[in-house]
Amino acid sequence: MNKIIYTPKGFQLSALHCGLKVNEQKDLAVILSDRPCQVAAGFTTNKVKAAPVIYDQKIVNSGKKVRAVTINAGNANACTGNAGMVHTQQVAEGASKLFDGVADEVLVLSTGVIGVPLPVEKIFAGLKKVEFSDSADSWHSAAKAIMTTDTKPKIVSLQSKNGYSITGIAKGAGMICPTMATMLSVICTDASLSDELLSKVSEVWGESFNRIVVDGDMSTNDTVLLLANGAAEFKADIDSDFYSLFTDVCVQLAKKIVADGEGATKLVKVNINGAKNKEDAETIARSIATSPLCKTAFYGADPNWGRIICAAGYANAYFSPEQASLFLKKDDDFIKLFEYGQGSDYSEKDAVALMENKEWEILLDLNLGSSNYWLWTCDLSHDYVTINGHYRT
Amino acid sequence: MNKIIYTPKGFQLSALHCGLKVNEQKDLAVILSDRPCQVAAGFTTNKVKAAPVIYDQKIVNSGKKVRAVTINAGNANACTGNAGMVHTQQVAEGASKLFDGVADEVLVLSTGVIGVPLPVEKIFAGLKKVEFSDSADSWHSAAKAIMTTDTKPKIVSLQSKNGYSITGIAKGAGMICPTMATMLSVICTDASLSDELLSKVSEVWGESFNRIVVDGDMSTNDTVLLLANGAAEFKADIDSDFYSLFTDVCVQLAKKIVADGEGATKLVKVNINGAKNKEDAETIARSIATSPLCKTAFYGADPNWGRIICAAGYANAYFSPEQASLFLKKDDDFIKLFEYGQGSDYSEKDAVALMENKEWEILLDLNLGSSNYWLWTCDLSHDYVTINGHYRT
Repeated sequence: MNKIIYTPKGFQLSALHCGLKVNEQKDLAVILSDRPCQVAAGFTTNKVKAAPVIYDQKIVNSGKKVRAVTINAGNANACTGNAGMVHTQQVAEGASKLFDGVADEVLVLSTGVIGVPLPVEKIFAGLKKVEFSDSADSWHSAAKAIMTTDTKPKIVSLQSKNGYSITGIAKGAGMICPTMATMLSVICTDASLSDELLSKVSEVWGESFNRIVVDGDMSTNDTVLLLANGAAEFKADIDSDFYSLFTDVCVQLAKKIVADGEGATKLVKVNINGAKNKEDAETIARSIATSPLCKTAFYGADPNWGRIICAAGYANAYFSPEQASLFLKKDDDFIKLFEYGQGSDYSEKDAVALMENKEWEILLDLNLGSSNYWLWTCDLSHDYVTINGHYRT
Repeated sequence: MNKIIYTPKGFQLSALHCGLKVNEQKDLAVILSDRPCQVAAGFTTNKVKAAPVIYDQKIVNSGKKVRAVTINAGNANACTGNAGMVHTQQVAEGASKLFDGVADEVLVLSTGVIGVPLPVEKIFAGLKKVEFSDSADSWHSAAKAIMTTDTKPKIVSLQSKNGYSITGIAKGAGMICPTMATMLSVICTDASLSDELLSKVSEVWGESFNRIVVDGDMSTNDTVLLLANGAAEFKADIDSDFYSLFTDVCVQLAKKIVADGEGATKLVKVNINGAKNKEDAETIARSIATSPLCKTAFYGADPNWGRIICAAGYANAYFSPEQASLFLKKDDDFIKLFEYGQGSDYSEKDAVALMENKEWEILLDLNLGSSNYWLWTCDLSHDYVTINGHYRT
């Protein structure tokens, strides 16, 4: 975890236990800006959307500025019927009283079990206990409060030479479904953004949060928010360092999510080169990254290249095994496993040793064109089955 | 397992150990017909195809009749370069000597580890030891010889009142990739088929072998063959009972494969009703049937309907949670889990008890149209990870 947290000016946080998690664990975080924030957001594309996602989308699409975000863990407020929207609105109203504002200046994020009505009374009681702070510790507390099956809080913080900073928190142990494992991230900056830049930053999701795979499932609640309050009095435009710093923050947060994937023991970059087009490269990368046979082989440090070639072969994309080469990579070391339609003459022992590392890369060169795509995945372990086989009991 | 095996006339079998498996286990089966057979076949659509698949496809597409099939377990002869085709041809030639025929009257099937050259000398030595029999026992021996990670041999046998029979063997512990888990099936009948019927029987794969999911991976070697030798002197046409009997054999064999899926403890039918069109129904069924979160919940007997609704929601198909209803079914019992966008008022205890059975059904009614699709899947257990995490060691 990053030790140094740059605290963007004008933001305060509070994290506390309101009763959604057991054992007095913190389960509610509120982020408040002392002035209105520009917002960029990304939401799940699942046709089943939790009430807070629908609520937030409406506000973000209206172009309104916001002052605060509430995030609760322990209840996703998804598939809760009409009550879901009513409860979301109530939470927003409750939080708006913290700054004498109105409900639609508040975005609401929820994560946790689905299908259970949100216990709004607990959240109201929690909001009454809020104590804001702008300290680095308050960021750590908020990152902890939003955890569910995560084993580690996730914070990334970077500072620009232009005097502003970008600090984000995230939770998620997979791009995964309605149980306690939804991906959420809130990233705050005290820069302000030009209109052009604001409309462009959403492209960063495609380079970061959309490039991670735990199990291929997609949540009802996935949400990423950027809040920019301008308190640092730096206006970032398209040519400034903001886009690249922000990308860096999102990439690092995304990587932390997959590294902490449910049951994950390894972080594997799946890198496809030489595809006819980018769509093909992505299709093949996702086929490998979601294959249970590939993922169990990663777990077992088994250089079973046949499974990788096979997963590439059944992806709906141009692929010719006779033209492809497959490598394992770790830093500057690489081992060629496969070439010209058959296995290469490699050392099994060396390949196993490389795969026993916590982080390494698969490089598949299709030799069909010049497009490429990469993403991160994790292995499929016994613990994944344990965590998800009896999740609610 | 079916106790009664009807032995189609004119077919003889032999099964023996030639040295591809350890511990003297049988690993080579040969099926020989006393006269030429019509052939219908289905092959993997993976772009990576094992040499015997390419070889067999050529013969089947030529419309030639065949006399024999060899099946070896323990080596898939996939991704073995030019040697793969040479070895396949050599095995066919070796087997053709058993009936004084020629190589292209022999189809060759292989299953097992990929990337390792086929030890043809072992297979030649095995072919010299062949002793044919038309007994029911010889069918059981052949079904055992072709097993890899299967825990049970798979035979289905049905007899028609028209005096012919259909008997099939299959192996496979998943629609799964190049390791010891490819799906193979050979079905023999002593009926002969009209040209119209022969061209139509391939449609049966779509109703049987293509409706099973273990892990969503697709093998380099998957092959299904129907051999019809006409020895029973019944010519089946499109209006006869053949199509329905044959469908029954294939469906039963397919069901045996998924019930014996790697690590599987449960057989779950995923049944989608009320879709806008059949493609949508199939897309949603496959999304649920391959979701690791759904499959681990099946394993844990956790009626976590949110995961099922969620997997339906991210499938690329028309789906509206507000209109859908979701049921668990076992024989005539059913439990409604979800309706009108939210959970129903069901007994958690009853739902868990139903899911603890070895075989049950998920029925998702989309209420959007009149199309439907079903398939079978199994659960994702600790044993799946154990079997596949260290497969080759």
